[in-house]
Parts: sequence; structure tokens; C-alpha cells
Amino acid sequence: MSKLMIVGTVAYDAIETPFGKTDKILGGSAPYIGLAASQFDIDSAIVSIVGDDMNREYLNMLATKNIDVSSIEIVKGGKTFFWSGKYHNDLNSRDTLDTQLNTLADFNPIVPENYKDSEVVMLGNLHPNIQLSVINQMNKRPKLIVLDTMNFWMNHTWDELMNVISKVDVITINDEEARQMTEEYSLVKAAQKIHQLGPDYVVIKKGEHGALLFNNGNVFFAPALPLEEVFDPTGAGDTFAGGFAGYLTKTDDFSFENMKNAIIHGSNLASFCVEKFGTKRMQNLKKTEIFARLQQFKELTQFEIELS
Amino acid sequence: MSKLMIVGTVAYDAIETPFGKTDKILGGSAPYIGLAASQFDIDSAIVSIVGDDMNREYLNMLATKNIDVSSIEIVKGGKTFFWSGKYHNDLNSRDTLDTQLNTLADFNPIVPENYKDSEVVMLGNLHPNIQLSVINQMNKRPKLIVLDTMNFWMNHTWDELMNVISKVDVITINDEEARQMTEEYSLVKAAQKIHQLGPDYVVIKKGEHGALLFNNGNVFFAPALPLEEVFDPTGAGDTFAGGFAGYLTKTDDFSFENMKNAIIHGSNLASFCVEKFGTKRMQNLKKTEIFARLQQFKELTQFEIELS
Repeated sequence: MSKLMIVGTVAYDAIETPFGKTDKILGGSAPYIGLAASQFDIDSAIVSIVGDDMNREYLNMLATKNIDVSSIEIVKGGKTFFWSGKYHNDLNSRDTLDTQLNTLADFNPIVPENYKDSEVVMLGNLHPNIQLSVINQMNKRPKLIVLDTMNFWMNHTWDELMNVISKVDVITINDEEARQMTEEYSLVKAAQKIHQLGPDYVVIKKGEHGALLFNNGNVFFAPALPLEEVFDPTGAGDTFAGGFAGYLTKTDDFSFENMKNAIIHGSNLASFCVEKFGTKRMQNLKKTEIFARLQQFKELTQFEIELS
Repeated sequence: MSKLMIVGTVAYDAIETPFGKTDKILGGSAPYIGLAASQFDIDSAIVSIVGDDMNREYLNMLATKNIDVSSIEIVKGGKTFFWSGKYHNDLNSRDTLDTQLNTLADFNPIVPENYKDSEVVMLGNLHPNIQLSVINQMNKRPKLIVLDTMNFWMNHTWDELMNVISKVDVITINDEEARQMTEEYSLVKAAQKIHQLGPDYVVIKKGEHGALLFNNGNVFFAPALPLEEVFDPTGAGDTFAGGFAGYLTKTDDFSFENMKNAIIHGSNLASFCVEKFGTKRMQNLKKTEIFARLQQFKELTQFEIELS
């Protein structure tokens, strides 16, 4: 069975949306990535760090999804990375109310021996040097390395970011960040410039407006499923990335054609993620629900047109 | 041959974009609608009004595309409706610099006898009473009435707008306007409410983010083609609507399945419109170019996923 190695944050989030608010719940990129990828019945492991205030039930929940959590370091007496945010009424923007790095400040990822030969590596949004360290610990070049990042690292660790980007196959980045990174408004031109930084595949996430996959001359687009209600957008991007990486790990086919399917699977899973607070919906997601919604994706986008 | 009856403005536009500026050129909704629809080799007529400052070469150009321009009233001594606007750097927003209604202020549309039995009527963005007047002049119920509108009429002529909307089959409206009309942020919910106002089909235009077609429970989405350069967005929405209405007129099939194709054709034509100032690109568009780009639309959106 192919293996997926995930590095990312495991956090406590306190979230407020127009529909309600949560106390500290499980958050961070890695749980969303892991839960999405676990839908494909693969072997996966999370490398991360938490304090011993982390509720073990959360880690057990991940373990029941066949996610190896033994490399989530638990720091005695330490506190878990904490993020608190409040979404605006349109759910398209949010204010960060509080960020406490806590144990994350000293995160030094250790890839477990049995995952050093993983076929796929998913580098969640983290300091680029941490992402680089994971790549360097692999004992053979993975078939696919996927990197997620954000504007914070562009603003503060540009050189380190450029270094790690040069070593990956796929970058996932949102539209505003792609524009910031390249100083190009056109996403086609932005993707061209990002290709030149290293990645053969550039995935530009546009939130409720879907996602674009660029592979040099080729382009593919997946919409977000139009939803009646978006309850909590937290984790949608990570769920998308986890579905993308998980599907590719499972199928072991890294062609552009198969990446289209991976983009659709990622978008599909993200459409569930936003229906409840935090990881709740992803914890209780049935295969029948997933396939029913994939059918909706087909109906949403597929057409039969005469090309003559 | 099926007939398409178009009512809309014929105007002079002065446009400034980050790439240049124009003196007065042909603008208004009707030329864009007509030029897009003319790609489908149908009979069409424009009902509109201009001053005698309108350059006859523009009208002749439309006539050479098999668009009947004999019902574009030319007011002696009158001046043509004038709009001037400047686009911001991202081309997603613009400032109106000047609007002079001129002859448009007294527009009283007269549908020509031989178009009173048109299969399809396209009501370009105008005062809702003018749109209504056109419907009332038809001597049989058209198979399809498509209406375009904008926030100005919501703000100033709400009751009249609701009246005409109740009589049409399809409304095209942009996302912000759909939200304003219904006070619903979710476009799914907004479309549901608009259905209740009358139209069985609701097309929500999202500009560079594509377009959604709702038909009660059914949804279809067409992306905008990702372009390296958008030169001038003026007329893209009207070109989209013209392509949509023109394709449906040609095929005489008003099913949801065929409307998907119409949406794709409209999006495809709009992707050309924005490549040059005003109507220039649409005046010189070859069938081979259109079909090549339809192929790009297929590649952009079509996927083969196993649903099991």
C-alpha cells in the first residue's frame, strides 16, 4: 500500500462564525489533511507537535482512521498551538483574534523510519525550513511532494520559501497569494512564474470560486460545489489538499489526467468540511455520501457539446 | 429559421483600461448581444434608438452580420446614449465617469412586424417598462424570454422590475445583484428566491469566476476561461447573454441539458470579447477560433472519474 507522509500543525482552534462559536476544538492543518486523505484507505502518518494539554481523544480519533499519530510529539508541560478567529458575515474573510505558537515555536519534525520511503509527502503550511527538513529526511525521493504555504512566509521568510519551493512537485496556494508571490494579476501568468520557481504543478485555490490546476500549458478547473449553507470555512483548504494528496497516493498515478480527478476529489471533500464546525463533519463522513456528491460534481460541470 | 428579437442600448462608449483608452466607440448592450448571437447563423433584429451622430458604418457593420438594424430608430438632431468609464488595475471594478442618456431618455421600442413571432426574445439591460413593452408587443408567446438587468433598476424601479421578471423564462444577473435582490448571501438560496419571482432559469454571472445556471433543483457551472490578458471587460456580460440566446435560438431546444451548452457557448464568446477594445474582437471572429476555444473549455472542465 502506498504511504502518505503528512507534516503540519495540530492545534486548538476557537472559531466564531455568524452561526455560532466554539470553545477550543481540534484544528491545525494536519488533522484536516489526514482526515481527508484517510478516505482513500491509504497508510498515512502525521508528524507534528502538541502540548500535553491536547485531548488524547482527538489523537485517538485520528488513529482510528488509520492515521499513524505516533510521530505527533507531545511536549510535557507544553501548551498546544492555539488559533482563534472570527469570520465576517460573508464567510469569505476573517479576523485573527489570537495566535499562540506555544510548542510549535520549537517544532523540529522527525520523520518516522517506516515513512522515510513514502511515495507522497504533503507539506502543510509551516515555516519553509521545517518543510525542507522533512524533505531532507526522506531516504529516497518521493514520487510526489506537495507543498502548501501562505502569505506570512512570503513576507517573513522569502529566501527559505523559494528554496523549499524549488524542491517540490506541486504547490497549493490561494489566488491572492499567487498574485503577491509573482506580482502578476493574471492567474495564468502567475502560474507560469511559479512554474519557473520549481513546481511542475501549480494549484491555485479560489475558495468558493473553485480551484485551478496548471501544468505548464495545461489547465484544469474544478468549481466549489454551490452550497446552501457554509457553516465554518476553517480547514477547507487543508481538506482540499488532503483529498488531493490522498487520492494520488491511493492511485499511484501522477499524470495530469489523474490529477484532474484528484482536484475533483479534493473539492468534493472540502464541500463537506465546511458544513460543520472544525473537523466534525470529516470525522463522520460515509463513502456513500462522498460518491453521491461526486455525482453532483459531474452534473455541475459535465456537458456534451458538438465540436464541429 | 428561428428568430431572435433583441432589445437593448446602442451607445457610444469611451473606455479607459490600464492598457489604453478609446475615444467614442460603438457600445451598448445590443451590439454585443447581436454580434455574439450572429455566430449561430440565425435571423435577428435589434430594436433600439440612437441620435443621428451615430456613425452609419457601425450600423452597416451589424447589418453585414445578418442583424436587422432597420428598427434602430435614428433621431434627427438627437445624440446617442453615451457612457464613459475607467477600469481599475485589476479590471474587476470600474468607475463611471460620465453617463448621458440623450435619445435613450425617450426610448419607446417598436417591435417590427416580422419579428413579433420571434421564437426567442432577449431583453437587454434597460428600464423594466421598456422590457415589458417589448413582451407585450409580441403576437404570440415566445418560446423563450431572457432578461438581463442590473442594480440600478432594483434601486429605482423595484415594482416595475418585479412585474417584468414575473413574465420571463430566464434572468441573467450578476452575483452581487442576485444577493441584493434576495438578501441572501448564498447563491443557491438567492436562485431559489429568484425562481419564486417567476423565472424557471436563473443565470448568475460571476465575471472572471464563471457563471451558474439554476433550474430549480438542477445546477450547472461554466468557468470563465483563464486568460493571460484581459484587455477590456466591457460587453463581456452582454456577449455571454447573446451567445446564450443565439445558441438556443439556433437549436430550438430549451431543455436544461441544452442550456448547459448555451452557457458554455456564451462563456466561450465572452472570452474573446475581452481581448480587444469594445466590439472589435467580436467583429472579426472566425468559426475555427470559436471551435478551438470550445475545445479548450472541454479540456478545462471535463474529467473521467470512477463513481464506485
